[in-house]
Amino acid sequence: MSLNKFFAPKSVAVIGASENPKKFGHVILKNYTDMGFSGRIYPINPKAESILGMKCYKSVLDVEDDIDSAVIVVPPEAANEALRECVKKGIKAVVMITAGYRETGGAGVSREEELKSIIKDTDTHVVGPNCIGIYDSFGRIDTLFLPDYKLKRPSAGNIAFISQSGAFALSILDWAATEEIGISRFVSYGNRADVDEVDLLNYLKNDKKTKAIAMYLEGVKNGRLFLETLKSVTDKKPVVILKAGKSVSGTRAVQSHTGSLAGSYAVFRGAIRQGGAVEAENTEQLFDYCRVLAYQPVPRGKRIAVITNGGGFGVMCADSIERIGLSLAEFSKETVDGIKSVMPKEYSSIHNPLDLIGDADVRRYEVAINNVIKDRNVDALIVVTLLQTASLGPEIVDVIVSANERSKIPIVVSASGGEYTQLLLRSLEKDGIPAYPSPDRAVNAMKTLIEYKNR
Amino acid sequence: MSLNKFFAPKSVAVIGASENPKKFGHVILKNYTDMGFSGRIYPINPKAESILGMKCYKSVLDVEDDIDSAVIVVPPEAANEALRECVKKGIKAVVMITAGYRETGGAGVSREEELKSIIKDTDTHVVGPNCIGIYDSFGRIDTLFLPDYKLKRPSAGNIAFISQSGAFALSILDWAATEEIGISRFVSYGNRADVDEVDLLNYLKNDKKTKAIAMYLEGVKNGRLFLETLKSVTDKKPVVILKAGKSVSGTRAVQSHTGSLAGSYAVFRGAIRQGGAVEAENTEQLFDYCRVLAYQPVPRGKRIAVITNGGGFGVMCADSIERIGLSLAEFSKETVDGIKSVMPKEYSSIHNPLDLIGDADVRRYEVAINNVIKDRNVDALIVVTLLQTASLGPEIVDVIVSANERSKIPIVVSASGGEYTQLLLRSLEKDGIPAYPSPDRAVNAMKTLIEYKNR
Repeated sequence: MSLNKFFAPKSVAVIGASENPKKFGHVILKNYTDMGFSGRIYPINPKAESILGMKCYKSVLDVEDDIDSAVIVVPPEAANEALRECVKKGIKAVVMITAGYRETGGAGVSREEELKSIIKDTDTHVVGPNCIGIYDSFGRIDTLFLPDYKLKRPSAGNIAFISQSGAFALSILDWAATEEIGISRFVSYGNRADVDEVDLLNYLKNDKKTKAIAMYLEGVKNGRLFLETLKSVTDKKPVVILKAGKSVSGTRAVQSHTGSLAGSYAVFRGAIRQGGAVEAENTEQLFDYCRVLAYQPVPRGKRIAVITNGGGFGVMCADSIERIGLSLAEFSKETVDGIKSVMPKEYSSIHNPLDLIGDADVRRYEVAINNVIKDRNVDALIVVTLLQTASLGPEIVDVIVSANERSKIPIVVSASGGEYTQLLLRSLEKDGIPAYPSPDRAVNAMKTLIEYKNR
Repeated sequence: MSLNKFFAPKSVAVIGASENPKKFGHVILKNYTDMGFSGRIYPINPKAESILGMKCYKSVLDVEDDIDSAVIVVPPEAANEALRECVKKGIKAVVMITAGYRETGGAGVSREEELKSIIKDTDTHVVGPNCIGIYDSFGRIDTLFLPDYKLKRPSAGNIAFISQSGAFALSILDWAATEEIGISRFVSYGNRADVDEVDLLNYLKNDKKTKAIAMYLEGVKNGRLFLETLKSVTDKKPVVILKAGKSVSGTRAVQSHTGSLAGSYAVFRGAIRQGGAVEAENTEQLFDYCRVLAYQPVPRGKRIAVITNGGGFGVMCADSIERIGLSLAEFSKETVDGIKSVMPKEYSSIHNPLDLIGDADVRRYEVAINNVIKDRNVDALIVVTLLQTASLGPEIVDVIVSANERSKIPIVVSASGGEYTQLLLRSLEKDGIPAYPSPDRAVNAMKTLIEYKNR
């Protein structure tokens, strides 16, 4: 199954486009123009002459041009008919936003069966129904039907995100946008009447813009096929999976949520491991892990260096490192001497965690970081910065970014604080340096990167 | 030991006050006026006539008025002499910001011994040296020597925070300010040459503004006394402790950080439990737990209701609830009927977790919440809101605040998202409703509240 037309269409139809700003069909049409979609856009609505200044068509069949992709956002009673016209027009990629299918039971179940029969043995593929569709920062596609002030859109990056739950995905995209976590392609596939997690994984495997894949899953359609696919994808790039529906009550809740069977968690967990993927225990871990896996090199070993200007944070890092089975690197004599040269005389003893003390300035950090990243005894570096101190300027960001460009070992950053700190963390994140709000999360992310090597 | 004069002085001297905005003595003096400290303020500096428009004195001994409290921020060579003058003047509460004592070794150690001998058998007590001092939103005291743009100050609230590490505390205060987590009193006690964790706990025990106490500890001075004190404090209000220096490497790092002995973690852990306190595993838990313990009632049992407009989040909550040993409440017939009346007809089956589905509006939440909080089968409520959806307005905040005022069961909220979501979460937080960025953290906080009952 080729999904290219979903992500790189030259022309797109919005079926159910509307002049009314409250309608999803309006928001989606406007998204395409706001995103700067470079192809041709055709609003479809039998009752309008033009929408947002674009000529409107009664049906996709009235458009003379070829159409690569369509978004269907009409009411459920009209949606299958619209899909039938898409098939007739030879449209290869249809995103079916419309809900009122299998998830509602009763008439919805037969409506979904009809949908399947409409596309059977045709070249038309459907994402959905009952989904929020696709957001693609490179293809400039945005079918998310929510206004920008409620849902910020993430910037372009190298993490793909596929989600069985639309609602979960919305909140995560919004969060990722605020945190400056860049997304390559995002797909919510809803009832997966056609395109499913396996198809999406296969597409993302060869997608050059994607360096790591985040998945939210409740259950898979075909366990054996999923495992095979996972193996072939993780040979090329990391996949991190957050599984919901692990417990008895969770499994019951899955059934009333997406109507799918969650299956045995023990079996699923085994499959994730066997498939070479990484499991996230919660929403924070899902992206904590993806960020480090997408942007940082896999280390040679597990000897960690910690550099900080807050002794307490050094202690907490040491605790975490030992607890999860990593070890603290022993600095070489060259490193110790190099660092000594910029420390106040009283602090002549250089340990790891390296406490640059509260009056550390950017220069002290720079010398310490540059010494540590070339030390052969160090496999990975965690920089913990207390950005609130009087002596540490915001140029610390430039120092870390520059070190990261030259470094062969992975670097992650931890800093806790308010708006000023968060601003600087986002700045690092944009440059591919995973930046976490607590030492625990930084250490945990580093552990995942190290284990990934030996998966 | 009475610490009243530290928190409610009628007059204060800033020894080392300066006209130079880069000097700590300038920032601290300005803090007192900016905070609206209602007592009398005396800048002390032998070289200045007036500072910030206030008459300046050469020594505290030149001030004719009584002085309750002093902040010493002169260089280490002059600090003990300044303290001697404070004793002579009869000042009861001295915050010694100055560093260069025991933490530097060598001459610093004897300097600290001298400090102790100066106050021995006097009425003068010292917080510090080598600390960032006190922040008190009720007494309007602020000795934090960092400008506002680097370090936001938290608003007034009912959580006290005492920290052995100044650096750690800075970053947490800054974070708390941004998250709208209100703080009653904060104390960083540095080298604890005099006032220590036991004295502070005893003070906070009877402090009416404090409903929960957060502590960051590396080690305690006197284990037996600490345990006894903890017991007497936790009889009156909850204490949550984050212990650093748990591992071999962490313990070593503690020694080079504050020079104190971390002691055996197993012993310490036992003491926390025996003392009736709650242990936090990391920085996030420290305040996640304090927030719920300070503001929400202890539930009768462990039957949790979950209300959400995002099915996936319901599933994740169910997983967490089962995993950590809580249970999902079964709604009474009245509750089910009440909720049914506002749900679309197709969704006739009302379960817990209650999925109000993606098109839920404020009214649907209101009816559901009001029914659930009076259901005798429900001990606690977790409201998971997906604030990004088109149909859910920001008035959901008012609905939750109003329910919380009437509710006898505890309520916590979880919502994930970007700036808009975070804005609404902070609004809840201000009204005493703990609001967490992930379902996991909300469930975990609720578990802590439930366990607190049976401690």
